[in-house]
Amino acid sequence: MIKVGIIGGGGYTAGELIRVLLYHPEVEIGFVVSQSQTGRLVSDVHDDLVGECHLHFTDEVSFNVDVLFLCMGHGRSKTFMEEHDVPADIAVIDLSNDYRLADDFVYGLPELHKATIQTHKRVANCGCFATAIQLALLPLAKEQLLQSEVHVHAITGSTGAGQSPKSTTHFSWRNNNLSIYKAFNHQHLAEINQSLTFLQPSFDHAINFLPVRGDFARGIYASAYVDCPLSEEEAYALYESYYADDPFTHVTQQNPNLKQVVNTNKCILHLEKHGDKLLIISIIDNLLKGASGQAVQNMNLAFGLAETTGLHLKSVVY
Amino acid sequence: MIKVGIIGGGGYTAGELIRVLLYHPEVEIGFVVSQSQTGRLVSDVHDDLVGECHLHFTDEVSFNVDVLFLCMGHGRSKTFMEEHDVPADIAVIDLSNDYRLADDFVYGLPELHKATIQTHKRVANCGCFATAIQLALLPLAKEQLLQSEVHVHAITGSTGAGQSPKSTTHFSWRNNNLSIYKAFNHQHLAEINQSLTFLQPSFDHAINFLPVRGDFARGIYASAYVDCPLSEEEAYALYESYYADDPFTHVTQQNPNLKQVVNTNKCILHLEKHGDKLLIISIIDNLLKGASGQAVQNMNLAFGLAETTGLHLKSVVY
Amino acid sequence: MIKVGIIGGGGYTAGELIRVLLYHPEVEIGFVVSQSQTGRLVSDVHDDLVGECHLHFTDEVSFNVDVLFLCMGHGRSKTFMEEHDVPADIAVIDLSNDYRLADDFVYGLPELHKATIQTHKRVANCGCFATAIQLALLPLAKEQLLQSEVHVHAITGSTGAGQSPKSTTHFSWRNNNLSIYKAFNHQHLAEINQSLTFLQPSFDHAINFLPVRGDFARGIYASAYVDCPLSEEEAYALYESYYADDPFTHVTQQNPNLKQVVNTNKCILHLEKHGDKLLIISIIDNLLKGASGQAVQNMNLAFGLAETTGLHLKSVVY
Amino acid sequence: MIKVGIIGGGGYTAGELIRVLLYHPEVEIGFVVSQSQTGRLVSDVHDDLVGECHLHFTDEVSFNVDVLFLCMGHGRSKTFMEEHDVPADIAVIDLSNDYRLADDFVYGLPELHKATIQTHKRVANCGCFATAIQLALLPLAKEQLLQSEVHVHAITGSTGAGQSPKSTTHFSWRNNNLSIYKAFNHQHLAEINQSLTFLQPSFDHAINFLPVRGDFARGIYASAYVDCPLSEEEAYALYESYYADDPFTHVTQQNPNLKQVVNTNKCILHLEKHGDKLLIISIIDNLLKGASGQAVQNMNLAFGLAETTGLHLKSVVY
Repeated sequence: MIKVGIIGGGGYTAGELIRVLLYHPEVEIGFVVSQSQTGRLVSDVHDDLVGECHLHFTDEVSFNVDVLFLCMGHGRSKTFMEEHDVPADIAVIDLSNDYRLADDFVYGLPELHKATIQTHKRVANCGCFATAIQLALLPLAKEQLLQSEVHVHAITGSTGAGQSPKSTTHFSWRNNNLSIYKAFNHQHLAEINQSLTFLQPSFDHAINFLPVRGDFARGIYASAYVDCPLSEEEAYALYESYYADDPFTHVTQQNPNLKQVVNTNKCILHLEKHGDKLLIISIIDNLLKGASGQAVQNMNLAFGLAETTGLHLKSVVY
Repeated sequence: MIKVGIIGGGGYTAGELIRVLLYHPEVEIGFVVSQSQTGRLVSDVHDDLVGECHLHFTDEVSFNVDVLFLCMGHGRSKTFMEEHDVPADIAVIDLSNDYRLADDFVYGLPELHKATIQTHKRVANCGCFATAIQLALLPLAKEQLLQSEVHVHAITGSTGAGQSPKSTTHFSWRNNNLSIYKAFNHQHLAEINQSLTFLQPSFDHAINFLPVRGDFARGIYASAYVDCPLSEEEAYALYESYYADDPFTHVTQQNPNLKQVVNTNKCILHLEKHGDKLLIISIIDNLLKGASGQAVQNMNLAFGLAETTGLHLKSVVY
Repeated sequence: MIKVGIIGGGGYTAGELIRVLLYHPEVEIGFVVSQSQTGRLVSDVHDDLVGECHLHFTDEVSFNVDVLFLCMGHGRSKTFMEEHDVPADIAVIDLSNDYRLADDFVYGLPELHKATIQTHKRVANCGCFATAIQLALLPLAKEQLLQSEVHVHAITGSTGAGQSPKSTTHFSWRNNNLSIYKAFNHQHLAEINQSLTFLQPSFDHAINFLPVRGDFARGIYASAYVDCPLSEEEAYALYESYYADDPFTHVTQQNPNLKQVVNTNKCILHLEKHGDKLLIISIIDNLLKGASGQAVQNMNLAFGLAETTGLHLKSVVY
Repeated sequence: MIKVGIIGGGGYTAGELIRVLLYHPEVEIGFVVSQSQTGRLVSDVHDDLVGECHLHFTDEVSFNVDVLFLCMGHGRSKTFMEEHDVPADIAVIDLSNDYRLADDFVYGLPELHKATIQTHKRVANCGCFATAIQLALLPLAKEQLLQSEVHVHAITGSTGAGQSPKSTTHFSWRNNNLSIYKAFNHQHLAEINQSLTFLQPSFDHAINFLPVRGDFARGIYASAYVDCPLSEEEAYALYESYYADDPFTHVTQQNPNLKQVVNTNKCILHLEKHGDKLLIISIIDNLLKGASGQAVQNMNLAFGLAETTGLHLKSVVY
């Protein structure tokens, strides 16, 4: 059994991680640290776990585990790593953006760095938008086919904005509403560019990215288009080949809808050729494939398990 | 023109009041006081008013008006009235619960106290649940027909919980969710009982009231049932007669749905007799008939205008 | 491995059943019959299964299975059983309401008839409202404590109305809307009364039941109250004792919310004593504990498996 | 008073038109034709009008009116005009797409053709997407500044898909869901191009348009970007100048959200310059500014009334 410690256990990504790990057949949760919730039952905070989880939050970090998941806010993982001398043989999977551009962590996108993740003890889990967008573009980059500006539009659920209530996550405001934020400037562009140039070093075009706040809680619906010399058939062949060994990333000829992936670790990709443009639709659950599910997928790889272990999650569909 | 001052202008009820008054043909808004928003454009805070309202929030209360609307939080109206010597000839319409049980204010339910409101300068606007529930029960009380326990269930939109973000108004939590709160103990029971015993002094049965947080922003869907000797036909006749002179309260034989009244000042009532029980469904918009719309209706009455002046509001329907 | 056949595979309950059975460790799906979808990929109709399910719908019923799930519309199971001579050793689990009051089928509520289900080959799976309401009342009935009228209010998701589009499931209508239907007359009252009188033969009070169409897709939020001589503490003790051996039914002292159980097979119960009245809140997912999840739970029991096998489903929470 | 006849009265746009015209101070509704609803009360079908509208649907077309609104499905307006000899002095305002590219109808976008609409008796009301997108681009076209491809993304509410239930308007499917349709090929591109080339005859670049089905009932949230030599400040000056005389189209420096315009006839525009690209956000209510509200605006113009008459509609905001 892999013994797990979770740091920053009160937030959305930690809750989701606990939900997944609780029935992971190879995992035992050793402790869940939360400064703000110390002493409370985990199931009092993540209250869907009533009757299923009898752990209490603690404030004591222990290294008597095989893997640590860092689920704190952005910036706080770095502080944690500086303040703690985490033994090198303990795997660390960081869900913040602190190490995604760092050399000492592997960037935790299995569809790009699977072999490295399997042999590494430090994994920087990808951003949610970054996951959806990269999975839409990686096959083209691998073939050096990103030869023009890329146009990306992605709509995210409210859980992407975290647990602290704010005006843009107030139900009265967000219900039936939409708004763009950080147009052309979202912080995930850096990690996206890092991956694309890893595959296609010559890539230096703009990624025009419009992130949108959607009026739903879970999921990212991303669309991207780019000039592309491939026919639709060739494009499908390329994507199917690229993702042939990736059990969560599926290419479909049917026009997809977001709820096909909500509450799963899947990414569904769909392609359409219109004139010179290739349109790629990419959908994920931001809390799973975009965060905690991918973190478990990375853990599975790092510990030599089948990638899908504990991750056959029933979609919510409706 | 009636000159209006609004105190506590940054919240939901004030915003809604401004929206209604802006196109009220007999009203001019003199000032909008908000301590927290002083100096800002009203349309920066209530941002749907862009291009329509050029007022700025002020922190100066003036008595150079005909009517003051108090839109502050519960408890703060009393403080305001104590700290200010509001001239007796200025009408005061209070939207908080501070004066609903007080002798010096008329209880602002036009369907119950229309004549008094027309001659009074101090009006305590009703609570939202209280409005929906009273309109369901008043005709029975008037005929001394409340002879058993009353069972009430009412589901409210998130705007009823106000503008400050909290865990139960977080979109990620509230979307597609439901929960009961203050079961059997909601504070509006006091004003409901006050009105029912005003009409039926002998009434001393329990009102079993379950308030529910709904996953929508606007509206209250209330249902009530009670043992009743009337046939369904007699009940319809009673309700139609009781509300014959009330332009916003409509009795319908069609099974209603909440969106028939959302964004209007209407109340729709529907009756069904099942065995000995009379079921009454009562629906309103909590921010309009349950708050700011009714406040304007009360103002119209207090100033001798037609009750519907400025209140022909288009429903949102879909 | 238990070999499964599904009849009526194109609808909501069949889709949900396939989702659950696909990763059930002791099950193999033999065939899925659908007259309307014959020849199509199951994952073209239940499109969240893209990449996970490679079955095609068939129109041929076979008895080379261990269990048949009947997922057709109400009335059609009876026709199917009359037209087919299903061998007695094949288990039949019917998700319609055709056999819920019949002698030759056991009523499939594990919390009531577990032992019988374990030895029976014909199971009539319970109705969704009926499940939520019975789980709220069974412990009282067992102690002969239902001594007055019962007041029940339950709000259901749109999936309860099935897959065929109709005006009350049109998004433009249902979004942010509410309406009551079949007040006091819902067809599930018959099976509820059957179970209550099974435990408390003297029970002959009215169950006043208001079903409500909610503006969400999944889940039932039911509340019930009844006069009760027990203290709140005694009531909790009774419910905890009654459900001690039921792995999906949990009693909690925290005020619950619907999303704690959405996308799981759980029922969460919460009790509050107010004056003489005991309030019971009962929440389930209508498609799982209220339909397909409970069907799998019944199958597990009928085949001697642990009740929870294949049913550790991650909640959607947000 | 302007006497109005409505043809095709049972659908969404007719319902919305009736809601607006009912309190229009210069209008009297003469008749509402609906083949499918003949004889029924208008308020039985558009049930929010209970108590406010006592008209019955008829199947008799009369020319004893000043203006006819055609609210039938696409294709049926042409048939109607061919089968009826509508006198030339009766204004015809067609809400379908039958005449938007036709010579004998003026294209009913007041922000483009106000003077012509004021003197014309045949008006082809604009498409909903087309309205939002044109209002985003007209000022640039007027200055011959559309010098590169245009990238447009627009998310629409479910009412845009009409009243007949279908799988993509089923609540269980659409709630919390998203999907793209008619990518790069939406039929409104023809009318958009017609208007842009009217102002900028040299314009021959692609408009890359991704329409998205949103999980809300009302509104269109459109974003467009294009290479632009103007600074952000110059762009604001251009837009403010272009729309100076248009009472419903407002330019704001605040990042907008969809609900600012829902249930109103307004369009809100917001500009941001990022590198060489000008981003324009344009939001409207698809049933009002995108259909029936604009139809009334056109009627006001055609009859010499102030453009805003009867169109001061309260936003729903929350």
